[in-house]
Amino acid sequence: MKAQNYFNNMGVNLDLAVEAHELLRGDAQREVAGVKEKKENHDFCSVTTISILNPQGEAALNKPQGNYITIEAPELRFNDSRVQQDVSNVISEKLEAMLKNFKLNEEAPILLVGLGNWDATPDALGPRVINSSLVTRHLHKYAPDAVQGGLRSVAGLAPGVLGITGIETAEIIRGVVERVKPSLVIAIDALAARAVERISTTVQLADTGINPGSGIGNQRKGINQETLGVPVIAIGVPTVVHAAVFAYETFTNVIATNPNLRNHLTQEMVENGVKEILKPFEGTLTVTPKEIDDLIDRTSKTVALGINQGLHPGVGWEEALAFLH
Amino acid sequence: MKAQNYFNNMGVNLDLAVEAHELLRGDAQREVAGVKEKKENHDFCSVTTISILNPQGEAALNKPQGNYITIEAPELRFNDSRVQQDVSNVISEKLEAMLKNFKLNEEAPILLVGLGNWDATPDALGPRVINSSLVTRHLHKYAPDAVQGGLRSVAGLAPGVLGITGIETAEIIRGVVERVKPSLVIAIDALAARAVERISTTVQLADTGINPGSGIGNQRKGINQETLGVPVIAIGVPTVVHAAVFAYETFTNVIATNPNLRNHLTQEMVENGVKEILKPFEGTLTVTPKEIDDLIDRTSKTVALGINQGLHPGVGWEEALAFLH
Amino acid sequence: MKAQNYFNNMGVNLDLAVEAHELLRGDAQREVAGVKEKKENHDFCSVTTISILNPQGEAALNKPQGNYITIEAPELRFNDSRVQQDVSNVISEKLEAMLKNFKLNEEAPILLVGLGNWDATPDALGPRVINSSLVTRHLHKYAPDAVQGGLRSVAGLAPGVLGITGIETAEIIRGVVERVKPSLVIAIDALAARAVERISTTVQLADTGINPGSGIGNQRKGINQETLGVPVIAIGVPTVVHAAVFAYETFTNVIATNPNLRNHLTQEMVENGVKEILKPFEGTLTVTPKEIDDLIDRTSKTVALGINQGLHPGVGWEEALAFLH
Amino acid sequence: MKAQNYFNNMGVNLDLAVEAHELLRGDAQREVAGVKEKKENHDFCSVTTISILNPQGEAALNKPQGNYITIEAPELRFNDSRVQQDVSNVISEKLEAMLKNFKLNEEAPILLVGLGNWDATPDALGPRVINSSLVTRHLHKYAPDAVQGGLRSVAGLAPGVLGITGIETAEIIRGVVERVKPSLVIAIDALAARAVERISTTVQLADTGINPGSGIGNQRKGINQETLGVPVIAIGVPTVVHAAVFAYETFTNVIATNPNLRNHLTQEMVENGVKEILKPFEGTLTVTPKEIDDLIDRTSKTVALGINQGLHPGVGWEEALAFLH
Repeated sequence: MKAQNYFNNMGVNLDLAVEAHELLRGDAQREVAGVKEKKENHDFCSVTTISILNPQGEAALNKPQGNYITIEAPELRFNDSRVQQDVSNVISEKLEAMLKNFKLNEEAPILLVGLGNWDATPDALGPRVINSSLVTRHLHKYAPDAVQGGLRSVAGLAPGVLGITGIETAEIIRGVVERVKPSLVIAIDALAARAVERISTTVQLADTGINPGSGIGNQRKGINQETLGVPVIAIGVPTVVHAAVFAYETFTNVIATNPNLRNHLTQEMVENGVKEILKPFEGTLTVTPKEIDDLIDRTSKTVALGINQGLHPGVGWEEALAFLH
Repeated sequence: MKAQNYFNNMGVNLDLAVEAHELLRGDAQREVAGVKEKKENHDFCSVTTISILNPQGEAALNKPQGNYITIEAPELRFNDSRVQQDVSNVISEKLEAMLKNFKLNEEAPILLVGLGNWDATPDALGPRVINSSLVTRHLHKYAPDAVQGGLRSVAGLAPGVLGITGIETAEIIRGVVERVKPSLVIAIDALAARAVERISTTVQLADTGINPGSGIGNQRKGINQETLGVPVIAIGVPTVVHAAVFAYETFTNVIATNPNLRNHLTQEMVENGVKEILKPFEGTLTVTPKEIDDLIDRTSKTVALGINQGLHPGVGWEEALAFLH
Repeated sequence: MKAQNYFNNMGVNLDLAVEAHELLRGDAQREVAGVKEKKENHDFCSVTTISILNPQGEAALNKPQGNYITIEAPELRFNDSRVQQDVSNVISEKLEAMLKNFKLNEEAPILLVGLGNWDATPDALGPRVINSSLVTRHLHKYAPDAVQGGLRSVAGLAPGVLGITGIETAEIIRGVVERVKPSLVIAIDALAARAVERISTTVQLADTGINPGSGIGNQRKGINQETLGVPVIAIGVPTVVHAAVFAYETFTNVIATNPNLRNHLTQEMVENGVKEILKPFEGTLTVTPKEIDDLIDRTSKTVALGINQGLHPGVGWEEALAFLH
Repeated sequence: MKAQNYFNNMGVNLDLAVEAHELLRGDAQREVAGVKEKKENHDFCSVTTISILNPQGEAALNKPQGNYITIEAPELRFNDSRVQQDVSNVISEKLEAMLKNFKLNEEAPILLVGLGNWDATPDALGPRVINSSLVTRHLHKYAPDAVQGGLRSVAGLAPGVLGITGIETAEIIRGVVERVKPSLVIAIDALAARAVERISTTVQLADTGINPGSGIGNQRKGINQETLGVPVIAIGVPTVVHAAVFAYETFTNVIATNPNLRNHLTQEMVENGVKEILKPFEGTLTVTPKEIDDLIDRTSKTVALGINQGLHPGVGWEEALAFLH
């Protein structure tokens, strides 16, 4: 079956570049034109950097030109602080590198934005990360002595969602950016994965910001350099798999193990069957682990640790952990 | 494919008697031996009563002898107070009838127990219902004048879950029952459905209490007359569909529309395919709508309204609604 | 003793105009120059309108020129829906009148802002009111058919506080106002009262917005026509009494009942005594009822009911109540 | 003025033994009959042990015979982990000593009970401590291999309050104790202090359990060896000062600085003046710092750290901190 067709027909985006790339490249020897892939290993995680180099690569992966760094740590699901520390260090390192690429030094003020709805559990990742972030802008303004020692000016915002405020998140952020004038925005969002094992065990950093249609909240407008006037780094963690995608994966898996079925079971059959099942809830069905609240709690803290380490030169792992507590 | 085999092999119970019955009876003309089914219609909901009459029926449906009343209201998903009122009235009416069958009059004190984990969204239904319930036992004890006028003595408890307290819920409830000596216990729990459209639109009342293995919290011990020494009415609302079941339904649907597949696609293929997909999360994957928090909030209030109306003779719809607010 | 001196020396503002006026006028026959007072009675509440007419009145009451409407309903503390309805109707009526004075018709879009910190109980009133407000701007934009029938375009925001976002609330609001361009802003805030009986039983509407130093959050910048470029209506409910003020009131009360003491007990003695007691917590001590969470919950719903009735022509008491539930 | 008379007339208990003792002994050379006091100093806290030795001492301090250990750490108000560690170590050490006195070894199973109402901020300390406690009883039962290595069997419960469950907390606890059969119960509760600087900076451990009338929740029945049949250790942290007591302290302070006033200002005047101020809220007025939510959050974690260290032989500060996070 052709997965890309299926996803298009079911109205599903692949938020993770590493999954969009896997889908396209498959087992092919040759890399996708206009795309470069680099892998590295750490103690408890592996890091894949997908770089989209030109319009050709953009069209292929349906994502803008730029760098997509995916940190995968299957053991993040458990309560192991060594894993948390490793992932946090990598997030920190990659964030610092991205800031350097944007030619931003330690003085550059940054605005953190936690996208999503605090009251809808799988969509609450962004606000939770803000909740654990080290915010210092007011200290820089009103108590500058307190922030000697490697604390960058960082502000943090959780703007809610369109259905609750009546205002597009991108509009709120734009209004605040125009007043506060950060040099960069970091937007944190909940994503949808294709593979269930990526739920809460994967962190994606993209220097292209948030694009229209991405995330489980389904942003109408982009949150990126184009709409805000400053560079935007997007940090995303998958918290769900769309039910339509999950169903597809089970069919794909069964066919892979029983190749004869290919002659009898068509993509159209699968699409129609799944569409009918999903009809009552109009496609908002998602697959999550029962313990999703705990997982989001844990992973949002890990992301916050990495952000705090990465943005503040004076904050290493020990200090970041102490702050969190 | 034989659904019952599949569910057994995947370790899945059908919490809803109406689904266990559908599975067994299918389109057969004859009723399942030892089982009786009765249907009635209301303005915004339909009510199916499955009565298991003897050990034969027990074995067939894998549920104890007794009555299982299922209220189905597809429009409960939306914010329509007429639907809420209809369902609340039916819950009230059926509860009153059950109390009568247990020969309990207005003086009989009742203990409400909300099973589940307040902090795990799909499992929080029980505690939320308790949160909206009209609890009066302390008034009966300390301010008896305040409760002239049709307020029964009702107590309410949310005992948490084994993983958080370290104590089996059944043990906590038993200890409290022995001190408080209610004439009846009503246990409210979150269930798993087979069909996604039943999520948050279905309420099951069973006069057999909670049986081992039921509910999404998977009770180790039963909470019933046998373990507590008093009759137990179980009220359950499905908040999830097990991912294994959802996958099965999609296959079943595709095969139903394309009967040729029956020759090529076996149950074993489906079981193995699904087991492999679920491995990372060891089977705790569930399918829920993205807006599950809102749905649980709404449905728990509807159930509480019905309980408050049904238990307190002086409380009708208007009073119950006023209390909730 | 001279209360105004005491309050100045202890760094305390009187947020309620009706209290500032009482303090100044006392039992005097003559009205304070530049100030007009009007009283009216309703079934369950009384309404006092203080109008500051000129710079003389401004200087006297230390508040900007404009109208300050205080609704006082001692029974709001209890769970009586008739009181709630009466207060809600009055809020609605006064809001409509203020909109008229600002020459705003039904088409004029409005932005609601809930000031305060959701996580600090006495300061959470603003965000809680937003939580219960009928927000429609997105419907006007994306589903205009749904909003035929008397629903004004209303947006709602809870911007948090400086210590959490690192951004002055006034800056966030200004940025959003510049993008969203409402015709008017309504800012809801928690206040400090002088008299404990006003806690949660009083609602103040002021057509002058929020002034620097007001509210228990102590706004650094004003949120008013001057800073935002659009008219601002401030709605405030006292949730605390400053401990310094409470102490003063007890002394005042004892002296009033035992006038001899006036010769022996000076204001300086009281000031020094109170300052010393408050030193450990540097003056952030407040007096609240133990059941403050419940009171704020109830009063924030009443305010939201009044706002929803007042802003949306098609929404009367019944509709507002139904929406809340 | 005679403070004890005042407190009696205003219906106020002194929960902290160290304050009851201060009140009685004052500056007297001689110790109160039947009472012994011992003091020790640590890096960031001081520890006062009041031992009530006989019925004479009981009558004097209005508390049962036993030991009352008060840990005072003024810097606990700030976010300093060295202070938190010091206090946690002392709690741990004193708990271990109390267990030894009760002749309980490492095998003895313990039940933790967090008294209070999760939804009333100043009363939420108990439930919050349970939330951060290391509960292991279920592991001992179902996964005994996991608990080799110094983890005692500990269960945890937060039974709510009479007004919410309709059941006296003591009854719920008794019912659970009869089923679970712990060797000891540790009950954690929020207290009222006399001095504002003790709010959230003081921890009291008493081997006499919880006595009727104590705590800000005002227990009707005791939770102690007498009512439960097992020893009870009570751990309390003051989160409020009663407004009546605060008022009294300001008068006392003013009189102390201006002794002439003693001739003119009587206790009766103060009592009447304060009673009148408190009338609207019938005495449920309390004094707390504005930032009470943060303080309770921090102090409840410190108490949980100390409990986890003290109960589990294999858990030291590092492990306790890691668990908390």
